[in-house]
Amino acid sequence: MPKDYRFSHLSWDGLQGLDVRRKASLFNDGGRPIHTLVAQQFTRGMLDDLCGLATRIRRIAKSKDGMHFLNGLLDHKRAMLYFSQPSTRTFLSFYAACQIIGIKAAEVRDPATSSELKGESIEDSIRTFSSYFDLLIMRTPQQGLAEHMAWLLSNTERPVPIINAGSGKDQHPTQALLDIYTLQRSFERLGGIDGKTVVFVGDLLRGRTVRSLAWLLTNYTDVKQYFVAAKPLQIGEDVLQQLDEAGVKYEVREDFESVIPEADAIYMTRLQDEWGNVPGAGDKDNGTKYHFRAEHLRLLKRNAILMHPLPRRKEIAVEVDSDPRAMYWRQVRNGMWIRVALIVTTFRLDGEVNKYYELNLE
Amino acid sequence: MPKDYRFSHLSWDGLQGLDVRRKASLFNDGGRPIHTLVAQQFTRGMLDDLCGLATRIRRIAKSKDGMHFLNGLLDHKRAMLYFSQPSTRTFLSFYAACQIIGIKAAEVRDPATSSELKGESIEDSIRTFSSYFDLLIMRTPQQGLAEHMAWLLSNTERPVPIINAGSGKDQHPTQALLDIYTLQRSFERLGGIDGKTVVFVGDLLRGRTVRSLAWLLTNYTDVKQYFVAAKPLQIGEDVLQQLDEAGVKYEVREDFESVIPEADAIYMTRLQDEWGNVPGAGDKDNGTKYHFRAEHLRLLKRNAILMHPLPRRKEIAVEVDSDPRAMYWRQVRNGMWIRVALIVTTFRLDGEVNKYYELNLE
Amino acid sequence: MPKDYRFSHLSWDGLQGLDVRRKASLFNDGGRPIHTLVAQQFTRGMLDDLCGLATRIRRIAKSKDGMHFLNGLLDHKRAMLYFSQPSTRTFLSFYAACQIIGIKAAEVRDPATSSELKGESIEDSIRTFSSYFDLLIMRTPQQGLAEHMAWLLSNTERPVPIINAGSGKDQHPTQALLDIYTLQRSFERLGGIDGKTVVFVGDLLRGRTVRSLAWLLTNYTDVKQYFVAAKPLQIGEDVLQQLDEAGVKYEVREDFESVIPEADAIYMTRLQDEWGNVPGAGDKDNGTKYHFRAEHLRLLKRNAILMHPLPRRKEIAVEVDSDPRAMYWRQVRNGMWIRVALIVTTFRLDGEVNKYYELNLE
Repeated sequence: MPKDYRFSHLSWDGLQGLDVRRKASLFNDGGRPIHTLVAQQFTRGMLDDLCGLATRIRRIAKSKDGMHFLNGLLDHKRAMLYFSQPSTRTFLSFYAACQIIGIKAAEVRDPATSSELKGESIEDSIRTFSSYFDLLIMRTPQQGLAEHMAWLLSNTERPVPIINAGSGKDQHPTQALLDIYTLQRSFERLGGIDGKTVVFVGDLLRGRTVRSLAWLLTNYTDVKQYFVAAKPLQIGEDVLQQLDEAGVKYEVREDFESVIPEADAIYMTRLQDEWGNVPGAGDKDNGTKYHFRAEHLRLLKRNAILMHPLPRRKEIAVEVDSDPRAMYWRQVRNGMWIRVALIVTTFRLDGEVNKYYELNLE
Repeated sequence: MPKDYRFSHLSWDGLQGLDVRRKASLFNDGGRPIHTLVAQQFTRGMLDDLCGLATRIRRIAKSKDGMHFLNGLLDHKRAMLYFSQPSTRTFLSFYAACQIIGIKAAEVRDPATSSELKGESIEDSIRTFSSYFDLLIMRTPQQGLAEHMAWLLSNTERPVPIINAGSGKDQHPTQALLDIYTLQRSFERLGGIDGKTVVFVGDLLRGRTVRSLAWLLTNYTDVKQYFVAAKPLQIGEDVLQQLDEAGVKYEVREDFESVIPEADAIYMTRLQDEWGNVPGAGDKDNGTKYHFRAEHLRLLKRNAILMHPLPRRKEIAVEVDSDPRAMYWRQVRNGMWIRVALIVTTFRLDGEVNKYYELNLE
Repeated sequence: MPKDYRFSHLSWDGLQGLDVRRKASLFNDGGRPIHTLVAQQFTRGMLDDLCGLATRIRRIAKSKDGMHFLNGLLDHKRAMLYFSQPSTRTFLSFYAACQIIGIKAAEVRDPATSSELKGESIEDSIRTFSSYFDLLIMRTPQQGLAEHMAWLLSNTERPVPIINAGSGKDQHPTQALLDIYTLQRSFERLGGIDGKTVVFVGDLLRGRTVRSLAWLLTNYTDVKQYFVAAKPLQIGEDVLQQLDEAGVKYEVREDFESVIPEADAIYMTRLQDEWGNVPGAGDKDNGTKYHFRAEHLRLLKRNAILMHPLPRRKEIAVEVDSDPRAMYWRQVRNGMWIRVALIVTTFRLDGEVNKYYELNLE
């Protein structure tokens, strides 16, 4: 475990005042995350390491002996899954990841029923709960809470690593990691992610997934991005500005069908109306226009892939599921494995896994 | 694990069109269940195997060494308990069963709080969750959902075995298994279940337990069944027709007390008014008439047993609990052990258990 | 495990009629608890044993090998955490304690959704749930329910040990144990608890914590107790009477600041208004008067400690948290370790832990 949690010398306001890259670098140590708080903290090297580790882990997991090795990695540690915003799929993905490496998990799904009723601050609650555990995995509706807790605990006698499992409309870094891992695996024998064309479709305004992935793709060489959406749901100017600064090629489009043949990966998204309505962006308006239907399959390149963070409504027709280019069900599994790799790396056990892999599987 | 999930060649409608016996046979493979979906899929041989295995497992479990052997059987696998219909007792019984054989369990108790809110289909939800696990144990209010998911997943790259833990008014096959196991154990030194008289009492109209057990008893030789209930709550004609076809002796009665002395097993049930009211069947009408009271104990044969699936209201007086013929508390434990045996068999580890038993306990 | 559950010969009314000391002695066997139901059952010898064991266990837990030894202690057993009154912190503390010693835990947080709806008695529910487990840890709003279940199960074929994790306004014995453990550790090199001055502040009327701790302190020699509160929230006469009978020195005060310099330990408490309002005791009245503020630190002895059972509102200013005399965050961790020690002792494995400690850490 890294000893240096490094926030102690900064005030909370001081931390918030930093540029996102500078801040993000504080969350890493020697090319590995201390905390996992924002997508921006992952460099190309870190992404390559995590993807490679995830693939080695899933191969190790294929045998009973391998599973026993993995089960023993962290069976002396305990993790808390603090999910004050419900998300069964993200919860189960992390929970299964914990089970695979033997870290004992406990969950808090509805903390409001308890001490918050008694007037306790959320910081006190989480600090208390953290006393019992060696790792916090947090999903909250409050933007920045995971970061705030990381800063707060870094000033106590017992800091623990924190993984942000989604904080409001803000950040969901492990979703971005699983998307990168899915692209990396799909293009493994096709030269990797470098040089590919990625098309984002649907609700680009509110999908934090798209924002994070668009950013992470700037780590790769010569990737072209398309943003295809109805005007009111187009990608934010701030994202485009980041891409401009990074010198990345992109196009903003309204028409979907004409872009399909150019894509190496199409990333469909769902109308995120749980965050409120956007005028002119109702399901009626973008209805069939931004849906992937069975007849679109013939427009799609033979080696292209179709992604979706799920849950879906009708953005992708069910008939498409059985096409080998439909990658969204594998994305789900990839999410579990990249989370395993992330936790292993957070506890600096990646070397131990690599050693086992070399001895037993190469 | 069985490789052949066998539904791939059938459409869902084609599967539904099959006769129940023909359909049930698709869920088994070589005398063992692939999925456990309906009580009808269990043959006499399968029931004998499961009961024998359950008894050997509970003997193995008596020592710390034995528990360690059991704990190691499935510690490389993960199970999801998807309980969208709450049932603390069935949930805990399965959960404890998972703990005994080391399979790592995760639960989904209230999926509605999550992605269903976002407009996802229930099939997508369950398919997603199943991605993280090696076994699904499902309890739902929807009739046939476990069967539908088994069919749906059998057409994907990653089918997993499914155990139906109760689906609406329809099927609850592991309850029927635990009832059979209780009868088998109770009559172990009395010639087994063959030749016995079983009396069902109470709400026979809506108790899926009674319907399943009545069916499973047709696997045994020369069993006589009594159905004792107020007219509006009597057993369905479809059950009686099945018994006629199977050539089984039965009687339909309204008077309870006169039947008690003939019984080898009395199976009391609770008025299932959570499914709605039946005219003329209120608690007032069948009140004390279909209750087992302390004074009935002297009418009961010395070797007879008294069963109840629990929860009870007043069908059996609390004073009866301490009589050695009261078997309902043991039924609860039997449920846990037969579920252990079922999961072990589903993963084809019954041979491994039997080998351990022969080496260490015989 | 102790074989003798000892209630069988007593009726429930007979048990309730006993003096609290006489009754409490029934819950112990040979200087160890069978059940942990009331604070009064712990003698000085038992407290010393538990505190010593907790400290040895936390030292063992510092190494991976040590954690593996602890993990193996009870991995053949299962515990049920029945929490019908929510308390995330107490739940997590017990849950983490179970994880440390490998006992497999299952939780029931909201039993009302299930069989109680179907008209089952709470005794039947808990008896059913207990069938699957080897230890019950119960938190309920009903006073005396843990004791009632211990008595009821002692008359069955399968009694299991019960730990009361809080029963209404009544008892919360493991909270009292963690307070004693915190005092004992803090004064380890200062002659122990004997001879110290303990000051209770705040809502002394309704804090069951204070009542239990005041009692347990009578086990130590020459401890002086202060009760500092607004008149309507002062400690109950019954507690003072017990202290009189035990020959313990105490003072009842209204002014807080003047007592601070005399204290070896200050035990702050929160206004427990979830139990209803007390006339004249609103937050307005006792507001700042019974709060510990940053400027009070200079009144506090150098070796004194500041305790709080948490959750806090404003009883202790957040600025105080970083003072080395602030002990409330350590109290939280102490709670987990003393619960580990309690469960280990309940299963009579304290000797095994002590042996490991002597061989490996002395």
